[in-house]
Amino acid sequence: MRFWRRQLATHQYNFDLEYTPPDFARPIFADTPDKEMEPAPADGLAPASFYSSTNFPTYIKRNGNWLLVKRPRMDALVVWDERIQEFACLEIRRVRAGQQVVVGKAEDGSTGLLVHSGGFLPAGASPDDASPDEAFKFMSSGASRERPLNYQRIAQLIAWDKARNGRSIWVLGPAVVHAGARDSMAWLIANGYVGAVFGGNAVAVHDLERALYGTALGMDIEGHTVLGGHRHHMDAINTVRHAGSIAGAVQSGLVSDGIMHALVNHGVPFLLAGSIRDDGPLPGVITDVLEAQDKMRFFTQGATLVVMMATMLHSIATGNMLPTFIEREGAIEPVYTIVVDQEEMVIQKLMDRGTHQAFGIVRNADDFLNRVVGALKELHAAR
Amino acid sequence: MRFWRRQLATHQYNFDLEYTPPDFARPIFADTPDKEMEPAPADGLAPASFYSSTNFPTYIKRNGNWLLVKRPRMDALVVWDERIQEFACLEIRRVRAGQQVVVGKAEDGSTGLLVHSGGFLPAGASPDDASPDEAFKFMSSGASRERPLNYQRIAQLIAWDKARNGRSIWVLGPAVVHAGARDSMAWLIANGYVGAVFGGNAVAVHDLERALYGTALGMDIEGHTVLGGHRHHMDAINTVRHAGSIAGAVQSGLVSDGIMHALVNHGVPFLLAGSIRDDGPLPGVITDVLEAQDKMRFFTQGATLVVMMATMLHSIATGNMLPTFIEREGAIEPVYTIVVDQEEMVIQKLMDRGTHQAFGIVRNADDFLNRVVGALKELHAAR
Amino acid sequence: MRFWRRQLATHQYNFDLEYTPPDFARPIFADTPDKEMEPAPADGLAPASFYSSTNFPTYIKRNGNWLLVKRPRMDALVVWDERIQEFACLEIRRVRAGQQVVVGKAEDGSTGLLVHSGGFLPAGASPDDASPDEAFKFMSSGASRERPLNYQRIAQLIAWDKARNGRSIWVLGPAVVHAGARDSMAWLIANGYVGAVFGGNAVAVHDLERALYGTALGMDIEGHTVLGGHRHHMDAINTVRHAGSIAGAVQSGLVSDGIMHALVNHGVPFLLAGSIRDDGPLPGVITDVLEAQDKMRFFTQGATLVVMMATMLHSIATGNMLPTFIEREGAIEPVYTIVVDQEEMVIQKLMDRGTHQAFGIVRNADDFLNRVVGALKELHAAR
Amino acid sequence: MRFWRRQLATHQYNFDLEYTPPDFARPIFADTPDKEMEPAPADGLAPASFYSSTNFPTYIKRNGNWLLVKRPRMDALVVWDERIQEFACLEIRRVRAGQQVVVGKAEDGSTGLLVHSGGFLPAGASPDDASPDEAFKFMSSGASRERPLNYQRIAQLIAWDKARNGRSIWVLGPAVVHAGARDSMAWLIANGYVGAVFGGNAVAVHDLERALYGTALGMDIEGHTVLGGHRHHMDAINTVRHAGSIAGAVQSGLVSDGIMHALVNHGVPFLLAGSIRDDGPLPGVITDVLEAQDKMRFFTQGATLVVMMATMLHSIATGNMLPTFIEREGAIEPVYTIVVDQEEMVIQKLMDRGTHQAFGIVRNADDFLNRVVGALKELHAAR
Repeated sequence: MRFWRRQLATHQYNFDLEYTPPDFARPIFADTPDKEMEPAPADGLAPASFYSSTNFPTYIKRNGNWLLVKRPRMDALVVWDERIQEFACLEIRRVRAGQQVVVGKAEDGSTGLLVHSGGFLPAGASPDDASPDEAFKFMSSGASRERPLNYQRIAQLIAWDKARNGRSIWVLGPAVVHAGARDSMAWLIANGYVGAVFGGNAVAVHDLERALYGTALGMDIEGHTVLGGHRHHMDAINTVRHAGSIAGAVQSGLVSDGIMHALVNHGVPFLLAGSIRDDGPLPGVITDVLEAQDKMRFFTQGATLVVMMATMLHSIATGNMLPTFIEREGAIEPVYTIVVDQEEMVIQKLMDRGTHQAFGIVRNADDFLNRVVGALKELHAAR
Repeated sequence: MRFWRRQLATHQYNFDLEYTPPDFARPIFADTPDKEMEPAPADGLAPASFYSSTNFPTYIKRNGNWLLVKRPRMDALVVWDERIQEFACLEIRRVRAGQQVVVGKAEDGSTGLLVHSGGFLPAGASPDDASPDEAFKFMSSGASRERPLNYQRIAQLIAWDKARNGRSIWVLGPAVVHAGARDSMAWLIANGYVGAVFGGNAVAVHDLERALYGTALGMDIEGHTVLGGHRHHMDAINTVRHAGSIAGAVQSGLVSDGIMHALVNHGVPFLLAGSIRDDGPLPGVITDVLEAQDKMRFFTQGATLVVMMATMLHSIATGNMLPTFIEREGAIEPVYTIVVDQEEMVIQKLMDRGTHQAFGIVRNADDFLNRVVGALKELHAAR
Repeated sequence: MRFWRRQLATHQYNFDLEYTPPDFARPIFADTPDKEMEPAPADGLAPASFYSSTNFPTYIKRNGNWLLVKRPRMDALVVWDERIQEFACLEIRRVRAGQQVVVGKAEDGSTGLLVHSGGFLPAGASPDDASPDEAFKFMSSGASRERPLNYQRIAQLIAWDKARNGRSIWVLGPAVVHAGARDSMAWLIANGYVGAVFGGNAVAVHDLERALYGTALGMDIEGHTVLGGHRHHMDAINTVRHAGSIAGAVQSGLVSDGIMHALVNHGVPFLLAGSIRDDGPLPGVITDVLEAQDKMRFFTQGATLVVMMATMLHSIATGNMLPTFIEREGAIEPVYTIVVDQEEMVIQKLMDRGTHQAFGIVRNADDFLNRVVGALKELHAAR
Repeated sequence: MRFWRRQLATHQYNFDLEYTPPDFARPIFADTPDKEMEPAPADGLAPASFYSSTNFPTYIKRNGNWLLVKRPRMDALVVWDERIQEFACLEIRRVRAGQQVVVGKAEDGSTGLLVHSGGFLPAGASPDDASPDEAFKFMSSGASRERPLNYQRIAQLIAWDKARNGRSIWVLGPAVVHAGARDSMAWLIANGYVGAVFGGNAVAVHDLERALYGTALGMDIEGHTVLGGHRHHMDAINTVRHAGSIAGAVQSGLVSDGIMHALVNHGVPFLLAGSIRDDGPLPGVITDVLEAQDKMRFFTQGATLVVMMATMLHSIATGNMLPTFIEREGAIEPVYTIVVDQEEMVIQKLMDRGTHQAFGIVRNADDFLNRVVGALKELHAAR
């Protein structure tokens, strides 16, 4: 499924993709009975033949009507939610005994469940038709360090998403700080381009270490290891723990620049999910990963644009619970998903885990952000 | 610090390294007063000038005596533990108000604290002296795909550690399963070479997916994606949740081969630490990362050999709380640490985070384990 | 085009793929006139609208008959070869003034030229049908360090190719020697599995350095840098230059083990193509790259199996002039092509340059060869 | 040897490093006799005990005087050049029978030969002293995607080198074009920052393909594969062959932008060295690699600044024949060497082959050049 990646990779500067719903008048859809369900045998357990969801638009027949499944994500159950009277995805651990769970494997509509992966395609295009149909061609294998990148296009997408009140999520690895992109991220936050930030303890620690001591992982801004620098991140953690919270450290004036400073000052929500490699942690880091997932899902279900940078762990985590589309004001729109990494393998791995829709960019996060900010400033100036 | 890596990389088949303690009769050590301490100002908070620990043998002066710091690890506080009447490392979040915390930065003994990083060096060698001292040479930069590997030597180390009742920890990423190394790991477990296993939800899920459905991430054993395979890992999770526990799934006969099967059947402890990218999770996965760290540390503090394979997250997590040495029966011995990854960068990153002592092997985990098992079988046969 | 990769990746142990030629009775083929040609305007120059070849079976109409193009390769002209009365590929620099050159871009048969890329497909399969047709699945993106590898299958292919008098080419980078695979390669050569070897100056220099001084790039067999080792490769070059040739150095007894020793002793041809990073060079290295290409093409045109290991330069060079098929005794058979590298990116890059047919293996060349040799020995023993 | 890398990595904005020559009054130097030499036994052959050179300043005693070896490079012979009455490096293949060749291995001055690797060090510093001397620290292992980069500093170095009439060499891989950096390189050339360009056939082909057809490897400027694009590079080659030369294609107006256009128009020399993976080749490509080396060495011997980008082959080739220092107007100055690659491993490999002095930058060449150009424009504007 590459429907919208085509948009970033061609000359058609049009991010408003029209969605073509399935034609439910077709006999295969009209003749099938309602989808079968079975009750969950116990809390946190699914019936053996449960249906496992994808991140594509999915329709299920009930009482003769085809209903779009809500809260879409991959690898979840689909249950009938009595409260909202809709089908919805639900993680297996969250199902309650007796809840009706969709069962069966077929996804072609023949048994009352249809996965509709081609809704954003231009008429006549096939799902894999991102490039000319030739038996022999070069550069057919996706993201590569050897591809050009139209930064203007990326900036236009980001600006377009903001202009229509999109909700973007920016997923940040600590390398964003290490490589030197704090100022760029802070500018994006301050200028309203960032709807929310996902990260871990480390990206915050090193951002705060830089604010407090001028280093990250003990390196100064030129990449030079400073004497005693190895203790700076622990100092930063202790200092913020003294302040009680990251917001407290910012509001007290201790922290006066960087990503966390911008997030706090501009009221942009951030979610720091813990990992077993964390030092500290900082106050506010969610150390239970299931709790962190639940809070992340709140954001991913409303996202219109996701930019993942320099983190395999958080990118895969976000991708796991991210739909490829969103319903907005009655219409179905793509969720634009960008992944930036220094290496093709990381992007390939994210896609191999099911986030097929990601547009891969093989660049350093610092350079990427610097140039995106530059292109956005040009867009501003051009107005 | 490369003291023992030299052992793996040279012709001296001698893993019994003698430790030379500091000469505390030297005036710099004899003349210094006791080390200064300050009380922790509150639970989970350190005094501002706390000393941040390293993974090297560290001595602190108290009442005129130099005491070796217990429970060594990097990036922790050093506190006076009243209960055991020893200095010991303690994570900042675990310190209690009023507890005496070592302060100051100097590590050369001049203020009562000495980091002794050269104890395992042969007489006259410098800490960086892993290779001949020439201004110009090739291949001076560490782990590389372009280095030979003496599998016999690795096998000898593993067998030597087992023979003297060492406690090994094997840290496994899911790629160990994906790449095809289940049988090799199961053999190592069944034959007593594995003291404990660290991993995450994913390595267990895919090992169990393979046992139950013959696939991992939906691929069969030849790497071929099978129809409907994308739901197998969710099926595996649901099936084990029905069984109540991984042990239950093994003991009931549902799971009859693989890594988890071997661990359960041979009573080898395993610790599955949760991460935000987890599906499920499986019963037994520790979803709070701080709780997982506390349990991991119990093992790392007693480890004599650590083998980390194909996981950056769990390797760095383990490295964070791993000493470079261990006290056994009054002697100080190195903790042999091996990291296997497909890429130099991952190894470099682990070392850049402070696990300097790791011996890096740039190989596929499946090939590594297959050949190590082969070499161990030869050692068996030779007896 | 993945027709035969399916064979390596599934349970069908059948390397004898049947080729389905185009149905030239179809009107599109029957009705088209003969293919248009234009004379080359000068030596080494093509007419502006020349047709650029692919590595797939290609048919051209002449005098009402469809003829298979000979000497297939990508990125060449197709000329009418008066001498053999056939169409044949020819590098642009080798065309002579007045020679008839095929022109035009269409490859669908409509203008008398047909590229037939689906000839080895099972009936009903589409060219991209290497895996089940699902909208959502995992691990869909090709070679990965996270795929299992069936070494038995690889060994069976190699043994099968030998048994039917195939002509294999083994393309070796210097890392084959550095990583420790000399003995494995020598075994393959001595046991008749190697038809020819392609490499550069470096793989031979370091193989000979190991034979003469026990080092490669100054590292001993355990990866340890030896004092003065940085001069060993120059010593090796000088020594072999004294001997007059690599063969001379072997036959005089100076060189008594390794890859070059096995090649000379078993009369297996090798071709060492020069590169600008070469020291020396060794006697016999072809320093003109066009001359080297001409000699390599002699082998690639007859190859039935190609194994490329740990060299991007030589792999892409070989792939450039390698067909995806070969005519043997009137039948058309696939040319099995395997590429082994430590990194996905190198494999992806080879495929992005047009060698789409390669089966990618993300492993260390030393481990790969060691285990292939092991599996071949088991096949031997099983007979 | 990291003497000047410190300059790029610290706050000391001083590229003018003072060189401290050896103190030849020391007894070890004063007491040693003249260096021993032996005649070459035949053309292209060295005496068995020849000395193999390094890229550091090297002094040899003759008639009681210590003379600096001319034409320094690694892995060469050192001969007495009768014509210039100096010691000089000479590739083994270029030595003539009877020519006096320096022999022996010692490099410490004790036998009349001294390799002086610490001449640019600040007083009291050790050769490896690029960072604070601590047993425990982070980020100690060199180039990393996780290091910040001070683009202003890089721009200052480039501007400083130009201002003092330095001779820079820019070594370009085809990825420079593929990733989109043609305009940046053309700007650098047009504004006098480029002394010479080294590359291969590919970088020129794809630059010209972009100029002629708007694609590189068949991709348009947004990375989208265009229909029929796979033949564009062959078209470009044929077109330039028609024009007779690259210069001809530019001067006739066929090629009106890009790197080759800028080089021709601004009279900047370029050297295209052939490789076995080349198509075509373009007119002017040097297809004999030894001839290419000889021509490259002409430039490397006079270089003051070398920037290598996105090419392992040409970077190692250039590094092989590059000194770490240059004599200018009687003074000895460092040769600033920068290597830019997407991956740590490539940089590590270059350094492992003896180009220890390189400052490694793990970035995409397109981003690197774009930001360097931006920083140079700011420097211009600031004047």
